[in-house]
Parts: sequence; structure tokens; C-alpha cells
Amino acid sequence: MSPKEILEKYKNGEMTLTEALEHIPDRGIEEMGFATIDTDRHKRTGLPEVIYSSGKTVEQVSQIAERMHLKGIDVLATRATPEMFEAVKERIPGAQYNALAKTIIYKQNTQPSTEGYIVVVAAGTSDMPVAEEAVETAQFLGNRVEKVYDVGVAGIHRLFHRLELIRNARVIIVVAGMEGALASVVGGLVDKPVIGVPTSIGYGANFQGLSALLSMLNSCASGVSVVNIDNGFGAACQASLINKL
Amino acid sequence: MSPKEILEKYKNGEMTLTEALEHIPDRGIEEMGFATIDTDRHKRTGLPEVIYSSGKTVEQVSQIAERMHLKGIDVLATRATPEMFEAVKERIPGAQYNALAKTIIYKQNTQPSTEGYIVVVAAGTSDMPVAEEAVETAQFLGNRVEKVYDVGVAGIHRLFHRLELIRNARVIIVVAGMEGALASVVGGLVDKPVIGVPTSIGYGANFQGLSALLSMLNSCASGVSVVNIDNGFGAACQASLINKL
Amino acid sequence: MSPKEILEKYKNGEMTLTEALEHIPDRGIEEMGFATIDTDRHKRTGLPEVIYSSGKTVEQVSQIAERMHLKGIDVLATRATPEMFEAVKERIPGAQYNALAKTIIYKQNTQPSTEGYIVVVAAGTSDMPVAEEAVETAQFLGNRVEKVYDVGVAGIHRLFHRLELIRNARVIIVVAGMEGALASVVGGLVDKPVIGVPTSIGYGANFQGLSALLSMLNSCASGVSVVNIDNGFGAACQASLINKL
Amino acid sequence: MSPKEILEKYKNGEMTLTEALEHIPDRGIEEMGFATIDTDRHKRTGLPEVIYSSGKTVEQVSQIAERMHLKGIDVLATRATPEMFEAVKERIPGAQYNALAKTIIYKQNTQPSTEGYIVVVAAGTSDMPVAEEAVETAQFLGNRVEKVYDVGVAGIHRLFHRLELIRNARVIIVVAGMEGALASVVGGLVDKPVIGVPTSIGYGANFQGLSALLSMLNSCASGVSVVNIDNGFGAACQASLINKL
Amino acid sequence: MSPKEILEKYKNGEMTLTEALEHIPDRGIEEMGFATIDTDRHKRTGLPEVIYSSGKTVEQVSQIAERMHLKGIDVLATRATPEMFEAVKERIPGAQYNALAKTIIYKQNTQPSTEGYIVVVAAGTSDMPVAEEAVETAQFLGNRVEKVYDVGVAGIHRLFHRLELIRNARVIIVVAGMEGALASVVGGLVDKPVIGVPTSIGYGANFQGLSALLSMLNSCASGVSVVNIDNGFGAACQASLINKL
Amino acid sequence: MSPKEILEKYKNGEMTLTEALEHIPDRGIEEMGFATIDTDRHKRTGLPEVIYSSGKTVEQVSQIAERMHLKGIDVLATRATPEMFEAVKERIPGAQYNALAKTIIYKQNTQPSTEGYIVVVAAGTSDMPVAEEAVETAQFLGNRVEKVYDVGVAGIHRLFHRLELIRNARVIIVVAGMEGALASVVGGLVDKPVIGVPTSIGYGANFQGLSALLSMLNSCASGVSVVNIDNGFGAACQASLINKL
Amino acid sequence: MSPKEILEKYKNGEMTLTEALEHIPDRGIEEMGFATIDTDRHKRTGLPEVIYSSGKTVEQVSQIAERMHLKGIDVLATRATPEMFEAVKERIPGAQYNALAKTIIYKQNTQPSTEGYIVVVAAGTSDMPVAEEAVETAQFLGNRVEKVYDVGVAGIHRLFHRLELIRNARVIIVVAGMEGALASVVGGLVDKPVIGVPTSIGYGANFQGLSALLSMLNSCASGVSVVNIDNGFGAACQASLINKL
Amino acid sequence: MSPKEILEKYKNGEMTLTEALEHIPDRGIEEMGFATIDTDRHKRTGLPEVIYSSGKTVEQVSQIAERMHLKGIDVLATRATPEMFEAVKERIPGAQYNALAKTIIYKQNTQPSTEGYIVVVAAGTSDMPVAEEAVETAQFLGNRVEKVYDVGVAGIHRLFHRLELIRNARVIIVVAGMEGALASVVGGLVDKPVIGVPTSIGYGANFQGLSALLSMLNSCASGVSVVNIDNGFGAACQASLINKL
Repeated sequence: MSPKEILEKYKNGEMTLTEALEHIPDRGIEEMGFATIDTDRHKRTGLPEVIYSSGKTVEQVSQIAERMHLKGIDVLATRATPEMFEAVKERIPGAQYNALAKTIIYKQNTQPSTEGYIVVVAAGTSDMPVAEEAVETAQFLGNRVEKVYDVGVAGIHRLFHRLELIRNARVIIVVAGMEGALASVVGGLVDKPVIGVPTSIGYGANFQGLSALLSMLNSCASGVSVVNIDNGFGAACQASLINKL
Repeated sequence: MSPKEILEKYKNGEMTLTEALEHIPDRGIEEMGFATIDTDRHKRTGLPEVIYSSGKTVEQVSQIAERMHLKGIDVLATRATPEMFEAVKERIPGAQYNALAKTIIYKQNTQPSTEGYIVVVAAGTSDMPVAEEAVETAQFLGNRVEKVYDVGVAGIHRLFHRLELIRNARVIIVVAGMEGALASVVGGLVDKPVIGVPTSIGYGANFQGLSALLSMLNSCASGVSVVNIDNGFGAACQASLINKL
Repeated sequence: MSPKEILEKYKNGEMTLTEALEHIPDRGIEEMGFATIDTDRHKRTGLPEVIYSSGKTVEQVSQIAERMHLKGIDVLATRATPEMFEAVKERIPGAQYNALAKTIIYKQNTQPSTEGYIVVVAAGTSDMPVAEEAVETAQFLGNRVEKVYDVGVAGIHRLFHRLELIRNARVIIVVAGMEGALASVVGGLVDKPVIGVPTSIGYGANFQGLSALLSMLNSCASGVSVVNIDNGFGAACQASLINKL
Repeated sequence: MSPKEILEKYKNGEMTLTEALEHIPDRGIEEMGFATIDTDRHKRTGLPEVIYSSGKTVEQVSQIAERMHLKGIDVLATRATPEMFEAVKERIPGAQYNALAKTIIYKQNTQPSTEGYIVVVAAGTSDMPVAEEAVETAQFLGNRVEKVYDVGVAGIHRLFHRLELIRNARVIIVVAGMEGALASVVGGLVDKPVIGVPTSIGYGANFQGLSALLSMLNSCASGVSVVNIDNGFGAACQASLINKL
Repeated sequence: MSPKEILEKYKNGEMTLTEALEHIPDRGIEEMGFATIDTDRHKRTGLPEVIYSSGKTVEQVSQIAERMHLKGIDVLATRATPEMFEAVKERIPGAQYNALAKTIIYKQNTQPSTEGYIVVVAAGTSDMPVAEEAVETAQFLGNRVEKVYDVGVAGIHRLFHRLELIRNARVIIVVAGMEGALASVVGGLVDKPVIGVPTSIGYGANFQGLSALLSMLNSCASGVSVVNIDNGFGAACQASLINKL
Repeated sequence: MSPKEILEKYKNGEMTLTEALEHIPDRGIEEMGFATIDTDRHKRTGLPEVIYSSGKTVEQVSQIAERMHLKGIDVLATRATPEMFEAVKERIPGAQYNALAKTIIYKQNTQPSTEGYIVVVAAGTSDMPVAEEAVETAQFLGNRVEKVYDVGVAGIHRLFHRLELIRNARVIIVVAGMEGALASVVGGLVDKPVIGVPTSIGYGANFQGLSALLSMLNSCASGVSVVNIDNGFGAACQASLINKL
Repeated sequence: MSPKEILEKYKNGEMTLTEALEHIPDRGIEEMGFATIDTDRHKRTGLPEVIYSSGKTVEQVSQIAERMHLKGIDVLATRATPEMFEAVKERIPGAQYNALAKTIIYKQNTQPSTEGYIVVVAAGTSDMPVAEEAVETAQFLGNRVEKVYDVGVAGIHRLFHRLELIRNARVIIVVAGMEGALASVVGGLVDKPVIGVPTSIGYGANFQGLSALLSMLNSCASGVSVVNIDNGFGAACQASLINKL
Repeated sequence: MSPKEILEKYKNGEMTLTEALEHIPDRGIEEMGFATIDTDRHKRTGLPEVIYSSGKTVEQVSQIAERMHLKGIDVLATRATPEMFEAVKERIPGAQYNALAKTIIYKQNTQPSTEGYIVVVAAGTSDMPVAEEAVETAQFLGNRVEKVYDVGVAGIHRLFHRLELIRNARVIIVVAGMEGALASVVGGLVDKPVIGVPTSIGYGANFQGLSALLSMLNSCASGVSVVNIDNGFGAACQASLINKL
């Protein structure tokens, strides 16, 4: 059946939309057996297909990276181990690794960076891996990024000291573990959207980030939304969509 | 001590910042005994002081509303009961009540509405109270708003039917209970920031919205962030900040 | 744009599938403002649109029921209060109410019942409301149903007494609260699929059905799957799909 | 056996300590059938016996109050309903009720108030019932008390405005719901012990105060300890012990 | 006592059923000291005895496998490590290992495969180990199986592309981690029973699969039931019972 | 088929035990449509059938009570409301109600009480309803019972005062809410089995008895086992089985 | 002050009991710096001091074992690693190790075994480590013990086969993971106290034994109490106290 | 802008406090790129900046330690591994390591110890690492400290034996795992503030310290507050603030 025939049948009521959908061949897909690359994603969602390396083998990660590279898609792999990077580098010599952020990046499509910037605010030194994942991702997506690290509320004057830089951003990502109070405090001081990233930093009744997550969800400041625990990547994705509006 | 003296001491190192802060009188505050109205909030955060009525008495809500009204501040009270509305209406005759959203609104400052719009997408009829809270809040904050209701994933073609309206918004609020899958599905189809609002709709292992909350936090779509369960107000606040960028 | 033009553009790569979807008008939808009836559902999923009354107003339930009735769709409303029934009966005089199951049913399309039957096994008298919801739903969907009630494992010989009836069913729904052990015991005695429905019956560390839910999910018998706590409706839907294979 | 004989046997090894304990009559006890008043408690723990009214009947509360009154013990009943107060007032005419704090107090033993004071800091108007329970209890125990209400971190300048009063206290009780960030912020600004009281104020993923509880337990400020959710009474007890050191 | 005597006593009321049960020797049991093989299980439940290797020693697994093999029972061991496979292969040379699924299989009884098929749909590459466990088990039980992998809802057109294959199955197993939305989406598009398998894939507020589990339990699509997290084996068992109806 | 034929077939291997079970009629059952009374339970388990009234209607409770009464079975209904008692009393005039314990009892079979006794130790006045349920049940089952109430660890000398009575019991039931420490303390002082009953008394992070439950399960004293939250009935059942050894 | 003086003061009211307690030297204690051996425990509680090895160093375990040995106390160490056993054996050559149960035992005081016996019933092979801990402990405490292993409810006839042995015990310990249904089933078939030991065996929504724990706590059989997850030791302690009544 | 200009603008209302804050340079900060040392903390909060080593690299810990040392700040690093200590010792030769407490300390500022003392009471040998962290921290902060170890409630006479030492302290830290009952028992015997530190010692339903945490939060003794699980450091900080009042 040709697409035309399908739509005629649909128009005449001989097919439901669901049946029509079944018969339409799709293009934005690259089949790899164990993976189905969504080559259409960037156009559709404003965000490219990215490799989430956790739970994948070294071989799978490097194969997907190579395939994307060959298709001309810029490569970003998150949660990547050094072994994965070694394997990717053999196939894509120019790939770069950020050991703290655990990201592999290879970018051939140069893209002018945004004028407005995203600021990534982190509460403590221990929150840096998550913050760096956010920074790497946001830059990969073509955003200008500024960093404000180790300004947790136990010494709140450290935050005030950098307040101007924070207030002038278009979007603010706040990365914090323990009680996650930093998101509320920042949210109460700025007039820009704040995206909270709770981290699993802490111990005891922290419950792998649950305390910071609940804290940020219950923020008394109104303009704060939240992404998953340790999800610097997701925060950067949404921040990028906002920054490019 | 005059502000000048304070700063001199601070400059000379005779005072720490903390000590200096203690001595500086503040203006953006309206003391009411049981409440301290933050009259400076709108200027500082882009969002006005709002009355969260839950846990307050009828008397407290109507007094705060009146005081704000007298100061020329537009009034929005969320989670307000009909009794609270009656009490407010006696003091502010023009106040309006949305029984589904449980909001009281009185707006004297006319503000041109935004050009771009926020779309509020709701999965089921039962999610409407939360969706309406988001709609009322977003409009109160001066945004143009569109509604797409009852388009849950159990009949996903209902969503496709309205996809154009959704894709053309600047920000998308997705309100869903049960398994909250709608946020991920929408997130995978659009290139705009999506703010998920899990609702407490459902039963059994829904655990008052926990299932939808976890579902949205774990969304496989990258551009989705989340606010607290049933927090239509908070979603609208962030959406407004984004819409006005 | 006509459907034909849309598909041509899609074929030529001028449109992605997503863009195409946006432009295709759909039919299997009945708009009601606050509700979007999925009239195509029965054809697509083998299960009709059903009214889940919880969280809806009396007015909303009776309006949706009437609209479905007028379209010739059989009506099943679950979690319906007596007030809702009164309102529906005014619009659909022949509607029936099961006070234990909290279901409203009006069926005009007579459908020959299945030959094979579904058996609903309940552990205790207190589990009957959930069991009855399953029974009413399964019958509404055109299945022959048998009941085996109050045969919990504290007196396991009561179960053996009815074992033949259970083993001869095509599908078995096991409804149990407290520790939910009945699902495992039945699962170990039969060669048919068992669908467990944990109920919120019990107290203390029952946590509103969590104990029975976890118990059934961890069943040491291999052929057991589970639906949500108290979800007799969902169990009957799946049992019906299986029974009609 | 006389106490002397008991101790001799214990000394000679004819009795273990446990056996000796069984034979020693005790005095610091007032038996009431359904209650055993611990008349020795004040001397032993620095805190008097107090009536926790929740889960007791109106009759039980008023009987225990009367008995304590007759023994010359000052009466404090927490979580008391207006009905309980009516019943107590009939037996102890001078008793006082704080409807917000839900406390009944009758104090005949005048005690000079402490010189140093306890400050009770509350984040929002909705936290006032818990804050008032702390205030009433602390005053009952003979402490000077100051109040700083509605200074949550969404408008942190409200807190700075009152910082001097807070820093000059000997102990600080911080009462906060939602994300409970106030405890960390205050803890980072003062050099006195801070006792956090999470409240059940909030909604959704607040989980009846769990978010604030976890937040305070994970405070990044070092000098913060925590009492149970909504437990203004307990915070005041510890604050009193500290204030009197 | 002979069986006859036992039943006579039972008939005459001299014995209860429980007492009678105690005296009846059983046959469907193979005693191994540390294990009691249920040789009757296949006849009774339609599913054979299977070795769940987790928590067993290498020695125990290989001994049970050998004993079953000697009794002419086909061998399936799940959650088996490579070491276990080495030990089993020494005793059963023809045994096969699927390293991804962690299954050991030795099948001597050839069984004609079913005509209808089970389809295993997996959301992401990381969900493959669980999906493969389901595939291996279903094939071992004599079912024809089809695979549809990496079709998560972040790129929902990948699913539509394979919809025909899915809709023509007799039973559908949906394997998904993160938010598990795929089960609801598939459930809303097909008229066959859907068995959801939540996986522990994800991070943060995924809580080892809890998010996907709750999501699937709360599915707004009616024909979905759920098995335990990562339990591909259990899903395949129930799917097999259904497929053979 | 006669029982004899069944057993012959079983003996000859023509039937499995499961098949044999299906064909054996049972006697220890009294069918009531909505309930299946287990008349054999007392003989089999040493504990009679008891009516757990929660989740049953007034009509169901009174009907089951009457039926048991007519069969000569002593009646115990737990969690019974005053309305249930009124209905039962109309059918069984001699029935007795304990409003605190919420038990209905009618006992016609006089049974000599045990020589050894069970002691029920309760931490606070608020724990009395649960303690009384245990007392009523234990007496109903023919045990001598002693009570030691309001001896919580906040004033541990109250416990020592009654230690002899506690140490001389054959079994000890400890009923405690809040932190449930009493079970550990008693367990460390006696050489008899201790059964802990956590109660839902308390507030905040008590989580409806979870704190006391976890506390007792983690008791550092070795001879302590636990029953469900508020389950005075279950504790008395096990204590009775132990007391009668 | 002599004990006599102390008691005189106590008698005369010059001292409270608490003050008296402070002044009484105690004997049933052996100080070791990092440990305080409770040498009086056996006499007081019927159970000897036992070494819980988890969280202790190899050196600490072997030192405490030696010290107890030198004082003539029989040694039982639970949760002991092979390294700990090597260290203990150097100091106490006759010590024995059960690698499955992880227990070290050295018993010099021969004690006649009880006549009645404890039966340990385990659901699966994977539950054996916990069951063996219970067996070793019960034997160490001087009880006759019988074992019934691998009789889970997925093949319930395996249980019936051994029912007589189970029913004739004085106390029954049921060890089960997954859904823990075995405790309820056994509890419904016997007239002796049943102590359930949930194990952490299972996966997914088992949550390290939580499912089995909740299941046993909610048992519909009345005579079942529960100890902590994997706590074979505690179950044996209570069983021993009961068996020796 | 000079501080003077800033304050003038603030005085005249040309700036809000927030804007003023942004422009004020701060001094109590030492920037290190990855860390922002809060050199002002000791003066502001009475507690110095401390290195929480968990989640930091060996390199980061030793660099921060060196920088603090060079600034003349005493060094305390908690949760430090032996590798971290080696690295620190190379830079600060006089540094000391407590392997049990996992603390690195270097103190050059001799400070007279307090007269009153803090007592650290620990329930079991396994709780010693947490207790030692508290002891090391309290001594580092200049407090006299006494230790009372291994006095859990399973042998409560061990506690009475040391009661005088405990009662004479100014503050009491109680460290306990399992059911954490020790905090309540001590709280009921003394008239000084008690700070509970729940530990993660235990197994099964201990849930990494949750049982002890909930137990202490629900303490029936009034003067008990709680810090995070295993947080000996935090308890010592608050105890020090109290001890120095």
C-alpha cells in the first residue's frame, strides 16, 4: 500500500488512525539490532540523541558512538567510564573525556554559542561531578555557561558574593545534596527560572538523594522545578530549551 | 548607627557581613504580627507575594488579602475554601472565585497579556482541579494560556489531534496522575520546555501521587522538569518566568 | 492541506512523521469540553471506554454516561456513589447499581457470553467489594464468571474444596488483602494464568494494601501477574482479553 | 524484707541487682488505675510530668489534671481539644487555653523567669500552631521567650531584619514545614545551638512533614539537631534544659 | 496405615482432612537434602521446575541441574553466573548459556513450537538483559517469540513503525525501566493482554525499579498487569500459559 | 467417586495428590454465601474462628455471630463498633461489649482457666485500647491474665516496681507506641518469651506505628518477637498457644 | 557510702531510686574497654551473652570469645567470617564453624537436650543460611531440633508430606523469603506457636526482605509472630524460651 | 561603587537590600576553584570550617587541608580514608589519624579545655566508630569528654553502673543502632540535654539506621533531640555549642 492509498482509506473511514500508523514506513530511525537510533530527534525535540552509557557494554557504547559519528551526528555520551572512552577514542580519535563529569564529547558541527548564559550553581565540592555533567551538556548543546561552585547555605555570604552573576543569567541550575536548601534560597533571590538538581551527596537519612529531592520539590520559592537525583544532563537539556527561546 | 557608619565599619573590617546585615533596617516588609508580607518579592523574583490558604484560618486569609489590596498589590489566594472566599469578598467586593481551581483572584493592575502562550495539557477529567489552578495562576501573572484536556495516553490519538497547538506554545505544562506517562510522551514530541505536574489522582499503589511523581522524574524524555504533586500554582509560576524571557 | 497532500509531503521527506500527525484530523473522539470520549477505544483495544467516577463530580459522571448512552455505547461506571447512580438513573432509567461493587451498568448491546469462564477467588468477606467489581466488569465485558469467596489460607481446606471449579477456568482472578498468600497458593495448584488483585484490607503494617501487593509481586509461583491495589476492574479487563483469545 | 535486708543480700551476692530492684518499694509514683503519674520526674529529669492528650479521653485528661493539681504539680496538657479544656476548667477554674497551640496550662508555682531567652523562629503563618506549642511550653517551664514569625527563606531579608534578636538568644528553635531550609540558613548564621522542628505543613511530596524532617536532619550547618515532626513541645523541653545550664 | 484406611477414617469423621493429609505419602517429590525437586510441577501448573540460581552455590546449581537432567526433565537455570555454567556444562555437555540473559538451558524434549507468538517489546538497550531472560524462557517453554527492542516513548514513532508485529501477537510483554510509560502506551494501542516488566534501569529517584513498577501498576490503560521488577522469567511463564490457551 | 476409589487411584498413580484433593468433600466448613465459617479451626490450630469486624457490615457481623452461636461456637468479634454490638445483642442477648477494646464476647463453654498467667504490659494510657484487646482475647481463650499499665521507659522505676509480677508470668505481651523501647527493656530483664505489639500511638515520624514496629523488630534483646501494629488480638493468640504448652 | 547507708537514705527519702542506683556497685559486668560483657545475662534472661560479629573487627571478636571462654561461658558468635573463625580457633582450639550459618561455637558445658523439639521449616534452598543460623543457635541453647527444608507454597504437597513432623513440635520456626506465604499456610495447619523469619531472598520489589516481613506481619493466621529479616538467631532464642517452659 | 555609595543608594531607596548585597565584596572567603573556604565561619557560628572528606578526591582533601593550615586554621577532616591521611601527612607532618573514627586532626592553636564535660554514651561495640567521631570532634572543639561504651538496654544494669558519670555531664550524646532505645532510657534518667545519634548498625528491618532514627525521634522522654544517622560529628558540634554556653 502506498502512503496515498493509506491516507485515502483513512479519509474514507476504512482505517482508524492506529491502523494507518502501522502501515506508514518511517525514516527517522537507524536500526542497529540492539539499538534504534532516533536520527529525527533533534529536529523534533530540539535535543539530539545522546548515549546514556549506564547499563550498556563498552562495545555497545563505542559502536553507537561510531555509527552516530558516521551519520554526521555530534556525539555526547554520559555516565561513561574511562574504558568506554578508550574504546570510543579508537573509533573517533578527536573525542574528549571529562573524568569528573564522566562525559565523552565529539563535536564537529560548530554552532555559534548563545548570547544569554546558563549559570550552574553548586552547593559543595562533592556536588561537582553532577554540576560538571550539567556544564558539559549545556555547552555541547551550544550554550554559554558560567559556574558558581561551593556556595552552600552554611556560609550564605559566599552566595551573595556571586549574586550579580547569578541574577543576570537567563536560566539557573542549582545543584545541591544534603538538605538541598540552596535551591529555595536562590529561588527567593532571582527573577529567572530555577531548575534544581538534587544530588545523592550526604549520608544517613539522606537516602541517596531523597532528602534533597523532597526538599526541592517542597521549595517555598515559587519558580523552582526539579529533575531527577544526580541528573545534571536533564537539567542542562531543559535549561538549553529555555535559554534558546 | 547610620547605614553609612555600618558600611564604614564593614569596609574597615570592624564588622563581618553578617554583623552588618543585622544592623541594616529593611523596607520590603509589611509586619502583621502573624504574617510578614514580602512587598518586595515581585521586584526581586518576578513573582508577587501570594496567599497559600491551606493551614491558615478564614480570618487570617481575609486579613492578609485586605492588607495586600490596600497596599495596591493584586491578590491571588490558592487552596481557598468557599468560606474563605465569602470572607474575602466582604472586604474586596470585586474578588472572583474559581471553585474547581480553589483560587480567589482580585486584579486591579491591568497588564498586557504576553504574545507567546503557555499550554496546559491534562491527562484526565479528574486532573482538572490541578490544571485549573495552573491556568488561573498563569493568567493572573499576565500570560496568554491555552487548554488541552483529557488526552491521556490510553487513547494517544486524542493527543496527536491537538499536537499543533501544543507544539506552538512557548512552555508546556503537563498535568497527569496515575502513571503520569503523558509528560514523557509530550516531552518526546516537542522542542519546548515541559513542566510536569504529577497529581494525586488514582488509587492503590498510586500513593497520593507518588507514582506519577517518580514517573515524571524518571522521564526518558530529556527536556522535562517536575514540580510538587498537585502544585499547579508552582508550575504556572515557573512557566510564567520562562514565557516572559 | 488534504490528507493526500500531507502524505505526499511525508513521502517526499518534506514533513517528519510528527509534523504529519499534527495535520491529520481524527475521528474516534467525542469532545465534551471537560472530557474527550475515546469512541474508537473498543475497536482498538478490545475494551470499551469506561467511566472511572472517582474525582469526578456527580454532574460530570451523569453527563458522560448520557452522552455515551446516546452514542449507543454500553455504560459502565466504576467507583460510583449512590448519588451518582441517582443522577444517572434519571437520564438512563434502565441503569443498574451494585452497591457493594460501586458499579453502575447499562447494557443495551446483547452479546453472547463466552463459553470458557473466569473464576474470581476471594480470600475473605472483607475483600468482597473488590471481588464484586471484578465480577461486574467481567460480566459487562461478556464473560461467564464463577465466584469462590472466603477461602483464605488460614483454613486452606476451604480452597481445596472448590479446587475443581478453579482449575477448570480459563483465567483466575485472586483477590486478597492482608498477606495476600492466596495468590501464590493458587498459582502453585493450577495451570492457568492467575491475576492477583491485592486489596487494602488489613491494618497496621498493611499500609493500605502494600503488604499484599509486595507479596503477590514476589510470589514464588511463576504464573502470577498483578494489578493495582483494589483494582478489580483492571483485573477483569485483562482476564477478559485472555478469556477471549 | 526491709530495704536493709535487700541490700545485704545484694552485697553478699545472694541477689542480683535485678532481683533487688524487684523488692524495693518505690515512692515517686501515683497510681490511678489507667495512669501511673511519675511524681518524681521533675526532680530526676528537670522536666515535670506533662499530659499528652492525644489518644486519651476527655475524662482521662481532666482526671489526671485534677490529680496533679491536688498534688501541687503545675499542669500542662498538650494537643488538648476545646472539650478537654472545658472539662479541666470545671475542676481547675484558673486553667488557661491557647486555642492555636492546643495547650491547657495551670501554674500555681511562681518561678522567676530565666535571664537568657529562647527564641522561636517560624517560617510561615501556617507553622504557627507548632511554634505556639513551643512558646507555651517554654514559658511554662520558666523561660523567657521571644518570637520571630513568618521569615521563611523565600524572602530571606525578612530574616536578616530580625537577626540580632536571634543571635542574642541562648537557644534557637526553628519551626518550618515545606522544605525546612530555614533551619540550615539560621544554623549557618549563629553560634548558638539550633533545634529544628519540622512541621507537617505543605502538600504532595511533603508526606506529612517527611520532607522537612529529612531536610533538617541533613542540614549542612553543623550545630542543628532535630525533634519529631510538629513536636513543638519536645523542642521547648530540650531548649529549656539548655537555657538553664 | 494404608491409604484406604486413611480415607475410611476420614469418611467416618475420625480424621479431619488435615490429619489425613499428614498420613498420605507423596510421589511428586525428589529429595536432595538441601533441595526438594517438585517433579510433579509441570503436570500440575503447566510450568516445569526451574532453577533460580541466585543465592545458591555453584555446587548446588550444578547438582540440581544434573539430577533434573538424569530424571529426564529439561533444564532451565536463571540468574546463572558464568561459573555456574562452567560447572553445569561439565555435567551436561550440551547445555547452552546466554550471557546477556544469564540463563543456562538444556532441552532434550523437542516440543513443536506454538503457532501464535509472544512479542517482547523493550524500551531501551539497557533493558535487554531482562528482555532476553523473557525471550529465553518463553522459547524454552515452547513458544514462538518475536522481539521489538529500543522503542521507548522518547521517540514514539519507533514504536508505531513496528506496531503491526505487536498487534498480531497473542500476548505482549513490555519491558521498560525509567518511567515505564511504554506499557501504558502499548496497552492503549492493542487488544491483547499486556504484561509489564518494570526494570531497575535508571538512577536517582528510580529507586531500583520502583518508579517503573508504580508507573505500570497505575497504568491508565486497562489491560495491563505487572510482574516483579526485572522478572523477565515470570512474565514469560504467564505469557506462555496465556499463549497456550 | 467414593473416597475409597479416589485413594486407590492415588495409590496406583492414576491421580496426583492435587487431583485427589479436588475430589474429596470436606466437612469442617459452614457455607454462608458471603462467608465460609471454618468450624474445624479450633481443633486444627488450637484457636477458634473469630470475627474480624473491620470491613464487614453490621448485618454481616451479626449474622455470622448468630450462626456461630447456633452451632455452639463461642463468639469473639474484634474491632466491633457499638452499632455492631447492638445488632449482635438482639440475636445473642448475653453478649458483652468492651468499648475500649472494641470486642464483643459471648462465651457459653466454661473452660477452667490456666494456672500460669499471661501478663500484658502497656507503656502509656493511650496504648490501653490495644492492651485491652489483648486482655479480652487472652481471657476468652481461657487464660489467666494480669495487667501492668502506664510503665513506659520515660520513668523506668515504674516498671521496676512491678517487675516481680512480670517475671513470674509464663508469657509477656508488651504493648507500646512511640519508640517502643519498652519491649527491649523488658526483654532484657526476664527469662520468658516476650511478644511485642507496636501501637500507632504517637505523631509525626511515628508513621502510624512504623517507628514502634521497626524498633521492636530491631530489639537488642534476643527473646522478643513481634506482631502487627495494634494487633492485640494476634499477640494474645500466640501467647495463649505458648501458655498452654 | 555502704550499700546499707544507701538504702537507709533511700528509705528515709533522702535519695530517689535513681540516685540510689547510681551508688550501687554492680557485679554482673566484665569490663573490656571496648566491650562490657554481661556475665549475668543468662541467669537474668535465660539466654547467654552472644557475640554478634557484624561491625566488629577480627581482633575484637576473638578477644571477646577468649575472655568469655576463660570465664567458663560457652561461646556462640553469629555473622562470623572465616577470618574471624581462624582467629578464634587459635585461642580456643575446639571451636567449630558452620560456614553456611556463619556461626562459631564452642560449648564446654554439656547440658541435657530438651525432650520436646523445635522444628525449623524453610521455604527454599536459598533460605538455608538463615535456617541454619536458627538451627545452630537452638542446638547451642540445648534444644532438640528437626529440619524441614525446601517446602515452599509453589508446591504445597511437599509441605503436607512432612506435616506430622511439624505438628508434633512444640514450637515452629518458619523461614521464608519472596512473599513469605509459608508462615501463614503453616500457621493455619498447626496448634503450636509459629515464629516467622522473613529472609532477604528475592529480587526487585522484595526490597531486601520487606515483602516477606510485611507478609508475615499481616498473616491471616492468628498464632504467628515475627522477628527481624534474616534473624535466625533471634527466632531460635525465643523458640528456646518457649520450648523450655 | 564604594560601600558608602551602595549604602547611600540603599538608604535612599534606589537599591533594594538584595541589590545592595550583590555589590558588597566579601572577605570571609578563600577561593580555591573547586572549593570556597569559609574563613569567617568560626567567628560567625562558633564552629570552624571542617573538611567532610566523603565524595572528595585524595588530592582535594589534602589541598584544602594544606590551605587551611597555611591560613593558621586548625584542621579536622572527617570520613577520611587512610590514603587521605597519608597525603595530608606529607603536607602537614604533625597531623594525627584515628582509624576507628576516620578523622584527621592537626591542631596548633592550644585552647584551654572546658571545665564541664560532654559524655558520649554508646550502646554496643559496633557503634564505636560513630562514638569515636563524636569524641574526636568534641575534643578538637576544646571540650572535656568522657566515654561510657557498651551499655545497651539488653543489660540495663551496665548503664546504672555508670549513671553518676552520665548525670554529672553538661550534655549527653547517646549513640545507638538497632532499636535505639538507649536514648529514651537515658533521657528518662537525667536532667541534661540528650542528643541522640542513630547508627546504621543492625540488619534487616534496620534499613541502614532508619529504625534507630525513628525510634529516637519518637522518644517518649522529652529532652531528646536527634542528628542524622551516623553523624557523630554533628552531635559533637551541637554539644560543644551547648557546653560552652
